[in-house]
Amino acid sequence: MQRVYLDNNATTIVDPRVKEAMEIYFCQQYGNPNSLHQFGTEVHPAMRVALDRLYAGIGAADEDDVIVTSCATESNNTVLKAVYWEVISKTNKKRILTTPVEHPSVSHVCEFLAENGAEIIELPLNKYGIVDLSTLKEYLDPEKTALVSIMWANNETGIIFPIKELAAYARSQGVLFHTDAVQAIGKIPVNAREVGVDYLSFSAHKFHGPKGVGGLYIRQGAPFVPLLHGGEHMGGKRSGTINVAGMVGMGLALELANYALEYEATEVRRLRDKLEDAILAIPDTLVIGKRELRVPNTILASFRGVEGEALIWDLNKQGIAASTGSACASESLEPNPVMVAIGVDRELAHTAVRFSLSRFTTEEEIDYTIEVLRASVKRLREISSTYKKC
Amino acid sequence: MQRVYLDNNATTIVDPRVKEAMEIYFCQQYGNPNSLHQFGTEVHPAMRVALDRLYAGIGAADEDDVIVTSCATESNNTVLKAVYWEVISKTNKKRILTTPVEHPSVSHVCEFLAENGAEIIELPLNKYGIVDLSTLKEYLDPEKTALVSIMWANNETGIIFPIKELAAYARSQGVLFHTDAVQAIGKIPVNAREVGVDYLSFSAHKFHGPKGVGGLYIRQGAPFVPLLHGGEHMGGKRSGTINVAGMVGMGLALELANYALEYEATEVRRLRDKLEDAILAIPDTLVIGKRELRVPNTILASFRGVEGEALIWDLNKQGIAASTGSACASESLEPNPVMVAIGVDRELAHTAVRFSLSRFTTEEEIDYTIEVLRASVKRLREISSTYKKC
Repeated sequence: MQRVYLDNNATTIVDPRVKEAMEIYFCQQYGNPNSLHQFGTEVHPAMRVALDRLYAGIGAADEDDVIVTSCATESNNTVLKAVYWEVISKTNKKRILTTPVEHPSVSHVCEFLAENGAEIIELPLNKYGIVDLSTLKEYLDPEKTALVSIMWANNETGIIFPIKELAAYARSQGVLFHTDAVQAIGKIPVNAREVGVDYLSFSAHKFHGPKGVGGLYIRQGAPFVPLLHGGEHMGGKRSGTINVAGMVGMGLALELANYALEYEATEVRRLRDKLEDAILAIPDTLVIGKRELRVPNTILASFRGVEGEALIWDLNKQGIAASTGSACASESLEPNPVMVAIGVDRELAHTAVRFSLSRFTTEEEIDYTIEVLRASVKRLREISSTYKKC
Repeated sequence: MQRVYLDNNATTIVDPRVKEAMEIYFCQQYGNPNSLHQFGTEVHPAMRVALDRLYAGIGAADEDDVIVTSCATESNNTVLKAVYWEVISKTNKKRILTTPVEHPSVSHVCEFLAENGAEIIELPLNKYGIVDLSTLKEYLDPEKTALVSIMWANNETGIIFPIKELAAYARSQGVLFHTDAVQAIGKIPVNAREVGVDYLSFSAHKFHGPKGVGGLYIRQGAPFVPLLHGGEHMGGKRSGTINVAGMVGMGLALELANYALEYEATEVRRLRDKLEDAILAIPDTLVIGKRELRVPNTILASFRGVEGEALIWDLNKQGIAASTGSACASESLEPNPVMVAIGVDRELAHTAVRFSLSRFTTEEEIDYTIEVLRASVKRLREISSTYKKC
């Protein structure tokens, strides 16, 4: 059976060149980079190359820090808890401004911090699914606000937030700004210094790197407390023996992803648009978010009268992997939270299905998906108890 | 040049069988295990096998939790900070009893918690380099103590602590007990339930698994707060997309390490003893810790009049990797802290060199090391400014 992977916002295939680059760090150059002998030092050149790629790849300045973590969940926890310890627990700035559509690794940390003295405010989204500047201005009280944490691109819809504008305003008010850029990197240009954020989280496995490794950008001078205290790796900012293979893999994966941005903006976008046009040609369908406001690879679509889970299951039986939303909430049968946040009716929000492409997606795969999807929606509507009522 | 790796307490070569088992989870079965489609579910059987191996490998009961982390540093941070949030910050039990020779991922977390309301007490070591039961009894006030955290085996000397005895006493007093078992697993039998600890940390790369993955045992009912909040992976106890390759690799590595325990106790011990005897045959040398109280692979030796760094460097030039102590403190020129703690004079503590073997160490390598070491110590003593004075 043909297998078509259209769930690249959940995770991605490791680029074979990345896997190859990692190979020697398991059974050949396996030393601990903190060791002073040759087994330790022989991995340093590759680590330096990887770090250079990370700095260049996310637009960090030399004086900033880029630390290697185990995943973006760790990066997000690190930032929010660092600001908790350094600002919220010590000053009158108790407030974190965020959005109702952040990944659980931001929103659940906020819930935890709220139990311990932080005040969390979720900024309302406008009709395009973003936080606009006027909303941030309305809510941001610089005397009370420790941090603004807003994702760069939404994992479910692909909608891009105006991070540069929002970060500039926060900075002008002397308020720290964090962005979870997990779903932006490899899809659109991401440059931490250029947009002026204080913290930026990313994850290798979202851009064809390995699982188990992520990163965190920390602007020079931004308040910081390590989440992992210990042997003072990463300049004291993240302890734990360095995952050399993972770090090397992530560095190369980021460089390759940035090389492929042009392809992403043209070919991946063309294939995404082809699939999206085919979806919209089916009656009673909806795609969330203006096309020009989204990353080029994502579609969050609704098919009235068709339960998202039923459609996912039917597609899966025919070899196509899509999702009802975030993989981290895949077992939830709640209506799609992003749709609820932007005002889509709850019945439709139950029918959401996300298709997310990558540079490995082929035209044949999209053609096959369109064919299967048409038939599947037709069949599921025929047996739907709600469709005729619509 | 011959290369001899005798720094297995810093990190180990990945067993080629482990690397092979991990292979398919990069470019073939790369799905996110939280996804409901085939790309997600096809990795579940291997993950179940890995989890079974972890439970069996550390002696966890079905009702306990074993969570996959990114390293033992994360595991140690998780435990200490969980107890901080659940006990220290909420009750009058502010105290953590620990030792002066814990890994920095315990001791530095303790320093951080001490700044935030915890009271840290370092239990003195006896002349054999361990905390004995009478010391724990003397210091443990159950009304004030939240946690006892004592390593199973010391990373620098290999000295084994009487964890079963110590944990049983803490338990009898209603006090939680954590052990950092990083340097015990794969060297001696480790069974969490049998010794009765509440928390136990481990790290794959210390037993021929990959870097970037570790584990944490949590006894049923032990207080817990995640260090990584987020998408509720690992039953809500450790969020972050699961590192499938790492988890599979760690599970197999642990099983293989336990199979090899008999070999470790006989052949690795024999080679270690051969090297140790040769060291002790050199005049004015010292090996720390009674042989029968140590794990079978470790020697911490001192060569009077020879700076540890100078000897390491000389050995390294001849292809032999040893260390002056913990890799996490390898850039420090302080006297060896374990030696200081057990009362070795400071001059000798500056000359410490650690040799740590593994099941991959060969007799030829040990013979070569003995030959090089003898000549090296002789040469360095000839140019030593202090040796003649001794």
